[in-house]
Amino acid sequence: MHKGRIEAFSDGVIAILITIMVLELHVPKSPHVGALRPLVPVFLSYLLSFVFLGIYWNNHHHLLQAAPHINGAALWANLHLLFWLSLFPFTTAWMGENHFDKVPVSIYGVVSLLAAIAYYVLQRVLGVDVGRDIKGLVSPALYAAAIPLSFVNRWIGLALYVTVALIWLIPDRRLEKQFA
Amino acid sequence: MHKGRIEAFSDGVIAILITIMVLELHVPKSPHVGALRPLVPVFLSYLLSFVFLGIYWNNHHHLLQAAPHINGAALWANLHLLFWLSLFPFTTAWMGENHFDKVPVSIYGVVSLLAAIAYYVLQRVLGVDVGRDIKGLVSPALYAAAIPLSFVNRWIGLALYVTVALIWLIPDRRLEKQFA
Amino acid sequence: MHKGRIEAFSDGVIAILITIMVLELHVPKSPHVGALRPLVPVFLSYLLSFVFLGIYWNNHHHLLQAAPHINGAALWANLHLLFWLSLFPFTTAWMGENHFDKVPVSIYGVVSLLAAIAYYVLQRVLGVDVGRDIKGLVSPALYAAAIPLSFVNRWIGLALYVTVALIWLIPDRRLEKQFA
Amino acid sequence: MHKGRIEAFSDGVIAILITIMVLELHVPKSPHVGALRPLVPVFLSYLLSFVFLGIYWNNHHHLLQAAPHINGAALWANLHLLFWLSLFPFTTAWMGENHFDKVPVSIYGVVSLLAAIAYYVLQRVLGVDVGRDIKGLVSPALYAAAIPLSFVNRWIGLALYVTVALIWLIPDRRLEKQFA
Repeated sequence: MHKGRIEAFSDGVIAILITIMVLELHVPKSPHVGALRPLVPVFLSYLLSFVFLGIYWNNHHHLLQAAPHINGAALWANLHLLFWLSLFPFTTAWMGENHFDKVPVSIYGVVSLLAAIAYYVLQRVLGVDVGRDIKGLVSPALYAAAIPLSFVNRWIGLALYVTVALIWLIPDRRLEKQFA
Repeated sequence: MHKGRIEAFSDGVIAILITIMVLELHVPKSPHVGALRPLVPVFLSYLLSFVFLGIYWNNHHHLLQAAPHINGAALWANLHLLFWLSLFPFTTAWMGENHFDKVPVSIYGVVSLLAAIAYYVLQRVLGVDVGRDIKGLVSPALYAAAIPLSFVNRWIGLALYVTVALIWLIPDRRLEKQFA
Repeated sequence: MHKGRIEAFSDGVIAILITIMVLELHVPKSPHVGALRPLVPVFLSYLLSFVFLGIYWNNHHHLLQAAPHINGAALWANLHLLFWLSLFPFTTAWMGENHFDKVPVSIYGVVSLLAAIAYYVLQRVLGVDVGRDIKGLVSPALYAAAIPLSFVNRWIGLALYVTVALIWLIPDRRLEKQFA
Repeated sequence: MHKGRIEAFSDGVIAILITIMVLELHVPKSPHVGALRPLVPVFLSYLLSFVFLGIYWNNHHHLLQAAPHINGAALWANLHLLFWLSLFPFTTAWMGENHFDKVPVSIYGVVSLLAAIAYYVLQRVLGVDVGRDIKGLVSPALYAAAIPLSFVNRWIGLALYVTVALIWLIPDRRLEKQFA
């Protein structure tokens, strides 16, 4: 089984997810600058998820290159990851359109956590030795913390999501080294 | 005629179908957890169809790899399959939004049956020897049974669809063996 | 310049066009069979355009394989074709939702004609010798005839579109021979 | 890291962006020709953005081919470009639906400028020597000029956008030469 098609399919799904998220930026009927103001939270929510999906695409790219082989279980582990990622447009829009209310912020963490777990499972199924994967352990822990803490204060939840994004924006040197 | 482009096109269509299905999870205006409750049947319907389209993508992947050659008829047999698959977002949303009412559940079976027949035709056109294809015979039989039985009790229809999904979640060893 | 990327991009656009057309099959709020009846013309219109876009994908596939080389002009000739194809979801939905009224049926022919001309231009730019291209000449002629004749009787226009579809459903032996 | 996947992903995103823009051509309920008139500005706005995204796809194609290597920073520089491009459907629709009002016309320039800057950054990160890149310097200058001038007269802004489009429609000989 060749990697090309699993890559192409995953790229297709992630590319579409990124792009349909932008459809939630509903076009205002008014041509005034003020008509953009209610869109600011939707835009920020979109920006956050764009970065997350970019990170997943990026890491997925490295992961598949590092994978020694792909079997039937890997195809399903990959689809499992794509399933949770496919819920990002929903949680992103719900969070943005409700101005980062505590419930949608918390649910955003639930889906992020499930996607992170699915990514971990995919790594294991692919047989990739991720060594002492600090980032891979910290991220789900931060998501798990954000789920209840968003009810205490929604800004805590959001701060945790931004923290995860910043952690991952630094390219994954571990896997890059593995190639070199 | 090379297989790469028929694979890429099919992947593209299936990736888009999977992703636009999620658009039917309409974002609630309210930020309360209770606002998610009416979405539960839509979500479950999406989950079922995500698994079905994942199965098709998976099997399609194996099928094309096993195909000795691709001719003009195969391109059309493939488009025929994609046509029926393209109706999944419609039947999925109709079933979910009407809380699995008997009529949409039955129609879901009609489209599933037509897609299964199209897949069978594609196998034949590609000249792939599928041997004693138990799954390939049982699936359309279960769909055909679900169409009338959904009118008796919609849960029978749904149980049959879930049964088909479970049957196929086990990777297709026949074709995998054929390579090895 | 390699052909792979122009193929991939065109496949992507055509795959998305085919798939977003199906979004015009608006999900009925009622679970009754009768709720499907108003969708019949939308469905038939979708079916017609699915076949047309399938034909374009199919022929485009052969055309690029036959192309001796691809230059900058070819990239633009290809985008020009994709532009007219991108209007198919609009004309398809307008025609279907207005039950094949004469004006949308005629406009459907206008866009089809412009797409056919764009395909012809692409062939020329690619330097593909299409020989005595009977189909390639008959199709735009039938579209051109359908534009005014749809005002006489809309069924004439539709009959002409179906005729073009049937003509092209037969695989393009000319180009296939050219390879062999 | 191979170029193929960054190309495929970018192609996917651009193909989807081009195609979802056309969804803003809302299908009229009336079958009369007059129902198309309010769509004219939306159509023209779509046409402009189709050309711009076509130019980006085209130049991106050449750019990646000229790139000596791709590193982690390039993946992010590419995602940064795709982010600004992803806002084109929004600015395009806002401008079209408000009949090219001065504010949306100006905002269209803001997003265009940010995309142009992102493209410049990508070129630098990829290590491509773009020589005396006249077009690459003139385009953002024209966008920057259009942002305030659209408030003076919206037609000035639009004229500047059309000018940029025309400048780029001529294929990029610099990079083409670099290959030959």
